[in-house]
Amino acid sequence: MSEEFPGYRGQALRFLKKAGAEIGDVIRVTKDGEKWEGILIPRSEIGDEKHIIIKLKSGYNVGVRIESTTRIEKVGKGIKPAFTPPSLPKQKAGLPKVAIVSTGGTIASRVDYRTGGVRPALSASDLYSVVPELSEIAVVDTEILFSVYSENIASKHWIETAKTVTEHIKKGVAGIVVAHGTDTLGYTAAALSFALQNLPVPVIMVASQRSADRPSSDAATNLLGAVKAAAAAPFAEVVVAMHETVSDESIVFHRGSKVRKCHTSRRDTFKSINTSPLARMEDDKITMLIKSYGKRDPSRKLNLKPDFDDRVALLKFHPDLNPQIIDWYVEKGYRGIILEGTGLGHVGNYCFSAIQRAIEKDVVVAMTSQCIWGRLDMNVYDQGRDLLAMGVLSLEDMLPETALVKLMWVLGQTTNTEEAKRLLTENIANEISPRTLHEKVGY
Amino acid sequence: MSEEFPGYRGQALRFLKKAGAEIGDVIRVTKDGEKWEGILIPRSEIGDEKHIIIKLKSGYNVGVRIESTTRIEKVGKGIKPAFTPPSLPKQKAGLPKVAIVSTGGTIASRVDYRTGGVRPALSASDLYSVVPELSEIAVVDTEILFSVYSENIASKHWIETAKTVTEHIKKGVAGIVVAHGTDTLGYTAAALSFALQNLPVPVIMVASQRSADRPSSDAATNLLGAVKAAAAAPFAEVVVAMHETVSDESIVFHRGSKVRKCHTSRRDTFKSINTSPLARMEDDKITMLIKSYGKRDPSRKLNLKPDFDDRVALLKFHPDLNPQIIDWYVEKGYRGIILEGTGLGHVGNYCFSAIQRAIEKDVVVAMTSQCIWGRLDMNVYDQGRDLLAMGVLSLEDMLPETALVKLMWVLGQTTNTEEAKRLLTENIANEISPRTLHEKVGY
Repeated sequence: MSEEFPGYRGQALRFLKKAGAEIGDVIRVTKDGEKWEGILIPRSEIGDEKHIIIKLKSGYNVGVRIESTTRIEKVGKGIKPAFTPPSLPKQKAGLPKVAIVSTGGTIASRVDYRTGGVRPALSASDLYSVVPELSEIAVVDTEILFSVYSENIASKHWIETAKTVTEHIKKGVAGIVVAHGTDTLGYTAAALSFALQNLPVPVIMVASQRSADRPSSDAATNLLGAVKAAAAAPFAEVVVAMHETVSDESIVFHRGSKVRKCHTSRRDTFKSINTSPLARMEDDKITMLIKSYGKRDPSRKLNLKPDFDDRVALLKFHPDLNPQIIDWYVEKGYRGIILEGTGLGHVGNYCFSAIQRAIEKDVVVAMTSQCIWGRLDMNVYDQGRDLLAMGVLSLEDMLPETALVKLMWVLGQTTNTEEAKRLLTENIANEISPRTLHEKVGY
Repeated sequence: MSEEFPGYRGQALRFLKKAGAEIGDVIRVTKDGEKWEGILIPRSEIGDEKHIIIKLKSGYNVGVRIESTTRIEKVGKGIKPAFTPPSLPKQKAGLPKVAIVSTGGTIASRVDYRTGGVRPALSASDLYSVVPELSEIAVVDTEILFSVYSENIASKHWIETAKTVTEHIKKGVAGIVVAHGTDTLGYTAAALSFALQNLPVPVIMVASQRSADRPSSDAATNLLGAVKAAAAAPFAEVVVAMHETVSDESIVFHRGSKVRKCHTSRRDTFKSINTSPLARMEDDKITMLIKSYGKRDPSRKLNLKPDFDDRVALLKFHPDLNPQIIDWYVEKGYRGIILEGTGLGHVGNYCFSAIQRAIEKDVVVAMTSQCIWGRLDMNVYDQGRDLLAMGVLSLEDMLPETALVKLMWVLGQTTNTEEAKRLLTENIANEISPRTLHEKVGY
C-alpha cells in the first residue's frame, strides 16, 4: 500500500501509477467496451489488488475491477485534499465535558468533497465544523480508537472499547459517546452492557444510516441527541441512540442488551425487542420510558469486566441442519454454543445426540428463538422438555445476538462450567425482561 | 416401545409396568421428597428412556425424570380412550371438495379429554366434530401424511408433501389445506412455493399457536378461514393462513415465499416481510391486497418440481465467527451456502478468504441480511463490492430462510453451477419484491 494511494495495492496500484493518476484526479476507465469517468477516491481500508473506486458525476461510488485489458486515462487534474483543520469555535464556560470515542462507521466519517473519499472526521474541530451546535452543549474531547467497518468489529475491539471508555470515565467526564457502524452495533452494545458494570455516567452508542454528506442524513441529529444525553441524561446505562421513526422529531435510547438492527436502510432501523426503549428525546427533553433504571451518580465506582472468550458459536437452526457442525465446534475446543432455535425453543430431534455429546464434554449449550419476538417456553412440548432434561439452558426472552455476546463474556469471567451456567441465566444487564412487562411487538 | 404405552421405552416403561399403571390411570410419582399426581398420558413421539408425562389437575402436562429412587403408584383407574368416531354430519349437495393434508402440529392435534394426551385429529369426522361449520362450506377429504413436530420437518417431508398435494389436485379438488406446526411452517411454505408451479387451485397452509382444547385457541378460526379460501379464493398460490392480529376478526394469507414466524406465542406470529399479505378474509369476504397474483384456473396444468438438495447451509454471521466453518462445509461436499450477513449485505473481512475458497470449489455462495427487513445493497461499501467481485450473489430482499430453501430447490433442479446461480437470482415465486413496492416494516 502506498501513502499517496490509500487502500490501493498490487495490480490496481500499478495501473494507477502507470496512468499518472493521483487521488482526486478525474480518470476514465475503459474495459470491455464500457466506460466509467469520475474522481479517483481513496479506499477507506486496504482492498483487494484488483479494484479501484471512482466517484461518478451522479455522486455514486463505483468499484471497477482491473483486468489486463483495462485502460486507465487521467482526464482531469484533481484538487488535492487540504487537511488544515478549521479553527475551533469559542467554548462556553461551565459546559459539561463529553468524550466521543470513535470506532468507525458512517457517523464517524465524512466525505471529503474535494476527493469524494470518505475519511474519519472525529477531531473535535471536524465535529464542530459539521455540527456547530455541539459547542453550545458540551466541551468535547475526541478519540479515534479504530476506523473500521463494524462488520469487522470482533471481541478484541469490544475489550479495547470498554477499556477506553473506562479511562475517559476516570477523567471525570459527564458522559461518553461511542460512534460505531450500524451493522454490528447491537452486538457491541450488548458487550459493553456486560463489560461496564455499575456505571456512574451514561455510555451512549451512536450511529447513522446515511453519511453526513447526504441530504437525508441522520448523522447530525443522532450525534446531537447522543451528546446531549451524555451531558445531561438522568440514566447511567449503555444505550444506543438512534431515530425513533423515519422523521427527525425524536431520538430514542435503546438498552444495549435489548436492541437489534431490524432494517437494512431505514433510519429507525434499531428496535428494542420485547421491551420499550429506555428513554426518548424530543425537543431536547428526555423522558424515561422505563421506570426502573441505573441512575446517573458520578460518585459510583465503575466495575470494568472486559474479558470475552471467543470460543462461542451462535448456531441458527434450520431444516436439514447438519448436526455434525455441533461436534465440529466441540472438537475445535469451543466452550459454548447458543442455539437459535424455532418457536418456543426447539430444534429438530436429529440434533439431539450431538447436543448431548457437547454437554457431556462440558460445553455450555443454551437456547434462544429465531422468532426474535416473544419468550421461550420449553415446557410446552415434550421435545422442549427433552432438551431441558439434557441440560440445554432456556434463555427466556434474550436476543440470540445478546446471548452469544453474554456467553462469550461469561466464559471470560469463569472457567467453571456450573458458575458459567448460573451467570448466563442470571439477569445482569436487563437482557431478560420481567414476565409482567407488556410485550410490545415489532415496529 | 409398547403399543399400550405409546412413546414410552426403557427405564420409564419398566417403572410404569412395575406399578401396574396404564395410560389414562391416575398415578402418583414420588422423588426426592417431591410428589406429582395426575393422569398418565401417552407421548406423541418416542421419548427418551427416562421421562414420563402426567397431566396435573391444573391441566398442565409435566415431564418427570425417573431415577432409581423414584416411586410410582397407581392411585386411580383411568377411563380408557374410546376411539369410536362420531357419526358424520349430513353433507350438503353441490359443495366444493377440499382436501386437508396433515403433517402434524398443534392444529392437527386434539387433546383427548379422557387421557389428557394429544392425538392426531384429522379424520373428517374428528374435524367436523371440532369445527361443525366445515360441513356447510366444503366436502372435506382428509389425509394424515405425517404426525411430527414441525421442528423435525426436513426436505424429505417437503418432497412428500408436494407430491401428496399434487395427487389431490389431480383428483380435481377446489383447493388444498396443509396443516403444519408453526415452528418451521415458513420454510415448508417456501419449499412448496418453489415445488408447486403453475398451480390451478390454492394451496393453503394453516397452523395454530394454541391447541383446540384451550379457550384462546386460534385453531378453529384459522382452519375455517383456510378451508373457505381453499374452496373459493380467487388466487391459486401457496399461502399461509393465520390471524392478522390478536383478535379473531380477520385471517390473512401470506405468500409462502415471504412469510416468517416472528413471535414465539402470539396468534399473529406470521408476518409478510417486505411486502403486504396477498389477501385478507373478514366476515367471510376475501379482499386481495396485492393486485398481481396467480389466478384460480382449474384448467391450468400443475408443474411439480419436488426435488431438493440438502447439501446447503444457512450460516448466520456474527462477530468472531470462525471462517473455518465455511471450509468444513466445502469439505463435506456442500454445494451451497446462504450467508445471513449484516446490514446491506456484509460479513467480517476475516471470512473473505474462506468464501473465496468455497467459490473456487464451485460452491454457490449468496448473501441475505439478518436485519430481516429491507433490501441488500452491496455496492454502497467497498467490502460489499469486494464480496460481489469474488462471486457472492446478492439476493435483494429475499428472506434468509427462503433463500436457504430456494438454493436447496435450485440445486435439486440442476447440477450446473452457472445455471444454479441464474435460477437463484431469478424471481420464481415472488420471493423478490419489486423495488417499487412500498416497504411496510414489521408488525
